[in-house]
Amino acid sequence: MLPAAHRKAKYILLANNPPGAQEAIIEQLDKPKFVVADTMDLWMNIAMNDLLSLLKRVDMLVLNDSEARQLTGDENVVSALPKLHKLGPRYVIVKKGEHGSILSSHRGLFVAPAFPLAKVEDPTGAGDSFVGAMVGYLAKTGGSVDANIRKAILYGSVVASFCCEGFGLNRTTKTTRSEINQRLRALEKMTRA
Amino acid sequence: MLPAAHRKAKYILLANNPPGAQEAIIEQLDKPKFVVADTMDLWMNIAMNDLLSLLKRVDMLVLNDSEARQLTGDENVVSALPKLHKLGPRYVIVKKGEHGSILSSHRGLFVAPAFPLAKVEDPTGAGDSFVGAMVGYLAKTGGSVDANIRKAILYGSVVASFCCEGFGLNRTTKTTRSEINQRLRALEKMTRA
Repeated sequence: MLPAAHRKAKYILLANNPPGAQEAIIEQLDKPKFVVADTMDLWMNIAMNDLLSLLKRVDMLVLNDSEARQLTGDENVVSALPKLHKLGPRYVIVKKGEHGSILSSHRGLFVAPAFPLAKVEDPTGAGDSFVGAMVGYLAKTGGSVDANIRKAILYGSVVASFCCEGFGLNRTTKTTRSEINQRLRALEKMTRA
Repeated sequence: MLPAAHRKAKYILLANNPPGAQEAIIEQLDKPKFVVADTMDLWMNIAMNDLLSLLKRVDMLVLNDSEARQLTGDENVVSALPKLHKLGPRYVIVKKGEHGSILSSHRGLFVAPAFPLAKVEDPTGAGDSFVGAMVGYLAKTGGSVDANIRKAILYGSVVASFCCEGFGLNRTTKTTRSEINQRLRALEKMTRA
């Protein structure tokens, strides 16, 4: 059971869990504004029906490139995107690790960079850091998802980069807001044509 | 011998050839403004001394990620960049195929996307299309390399995308300037945060 205080949350991240458990959370929510689901290959292998049921009820699906291929049977990530939308989510993010991510929505594609790191200590948890920071940014900012989603993705990329610079949470827990903002400005500068 | 009319060219692309032959071209140039060299793993294996000699005389080196690793012995492309600058070129572009490219210069990094393609027919020649179109853009535009290089890289990405959509030159030779400009605007829109 979801604590009463959490049922009214507007921006929801269903972190990677069995899709049946993720959908059970949705059932308890009181008019969420934006529901994001993370998933993984394991659920495609052992709980595909539950996953397909979940996907009909989320606004955004986040998955990595190999999972996008597995879920659609399409080797090309770009042509896999419309197939992922057909499963339900209006927004899809395909993560490509050090190569960044692609957002697909009714506004078209957003090709987002990862923050370039000269030293990677341990990428474990980078995907969760990315999506957690992204949804946190949307929740903190409020207002229109379309107006904020691109900046939210860059914010997620930056937080994920700190995660990669330490083992476990060693670096992440030491990260200050000022460091995040500095790296965010640097990333924006690195992508501006 | 380089034809006399070519000796005064200001923007030079030394396409992938034996580095000794590339350097022989430089010797014949009359005050070039910007010299770009492409290279490949083969020359690192059989003509490394010639390659190192060449690199001292070019403004920009273009190579792919695996070649950057081979030339520097550094597995991390980002930390390999300063090592590549130390070999001579003030500008370095590391190509990452469908994942885009990274420019490194005194202005910092530019993380550039590839144009997302839903169908890739044959990527052969995409790297040459990329660098050829990039240098062509610089030459056509003239003026400051720093002011134009980012747009030139996007232009190169777009021309490379057409190359990938056909076998050999089938698609490239049918591409119109209007198609290139349209895809360039789309790519800029896809990367604007």
